[in-house]
Amino acid sequence: MADPEDNEKAASSQESATSTKRSSSEADTPVNTKKHRPKDESPDEQIAQTPRPPYYAVIFTSLRNTTTTTSETEAYGKTAQRMVELARQQPGYLGVESARDGLGITVSYWKDLPSIRHWKQNCEHVQAQENGIQKWYSAYTTRIALVERDYSM
Amino acid sequence: MADPEDNEKAASSQESATSTKRSSSEADTPVNTKKHRPKDESPDEQIAQTPRPPYYAVIFTSLRNTTTTTSETEAYGKTAQRMVELARQQPGYLGVESARDGLGITVSYWKDLPSIRHWKQNCEHVQAQENGIQKWYSAYTTRIALVERDYSM
Repeated sequence: MADPEDNEKAASSQESATSTKRSSSEADTPVNTKKHRPKDESPDEQIAQTPRPPYYAVIFTSLRNTTTTTSETEAYGKTAQRMVELARQQPGYLGVESARDGLGITVSYWKDLPSIRHWKQNCEHVQAQENGIQKWYSAYTTRIALVERDYSM
Repeated sequence: MADPEDNEKAASSQESATSTKRSSSEADTPVNTKKHRPKDESPDEQIAQTPRPPYYAVIFTSLRNTTTTTSETEAYGKTAQRMVELARQQPGYLGVESARDGLGITVSYWKDLPSIRHWKQNCEHVQAQENGIQKWYSAYTTRIALVERDYSM
């Protein structure tokens, strides 16, 4: 999960996710009640158990570089796993969901923009982002989004 | 893409995505410049080319029902493809990204909340949502999120 979330400007322009108001008509909306995923669950096969909105999503969509060498691919796998472990230790981390099927989509969830900025600036994560740009990805898009509501089956 | 986006309450409580202000410091932020993906590109292997934020994302994360019969799985595949084609014809549609790797993640992008509500209420889509709940998915979460910024490589 080498997500190069460059959110500093967004973070400086809106420091909190708590300013979004929920209408009273949403009081009966089904929401997730579990606050956190257990540490031992695989992040790749689970739906993130996030708290009641508002909170933030970082949607990272990528295409892998098809000219990557075997050793670079191995390094990518190790780094991706390490980034998931590291992200879980960060303040404001709420969960992650990831799938790759040609296109890769990783959505990480965060309490607020400062939490995303803090993770973005983590030293190990910075190195992973640089490797992602230089070696692993042929294209990517990162979107920072405020989750206003959610519901589950 | 049988996404049961039940966004009516969100749509009624906030009718427009245009209320989010961008700070002047974001003027030099890299953004996607292509407004729309060509109709003949595969939605499963492309990064959506969305306009400048703000716009909306519907993040649909799902786990497939492992007891689904072969005919139900075939019907799912056909319906998923049909829903992508149908979504593209809707007003306010901006793009879609999809990947499945155990966990399935589909992110569709929309101009505003009324566009999402309109798509949610499409007759064919309503039927697909019901089939998704009854046959295809063992679990899903849908999140409605306002994309505040994005950038690409």
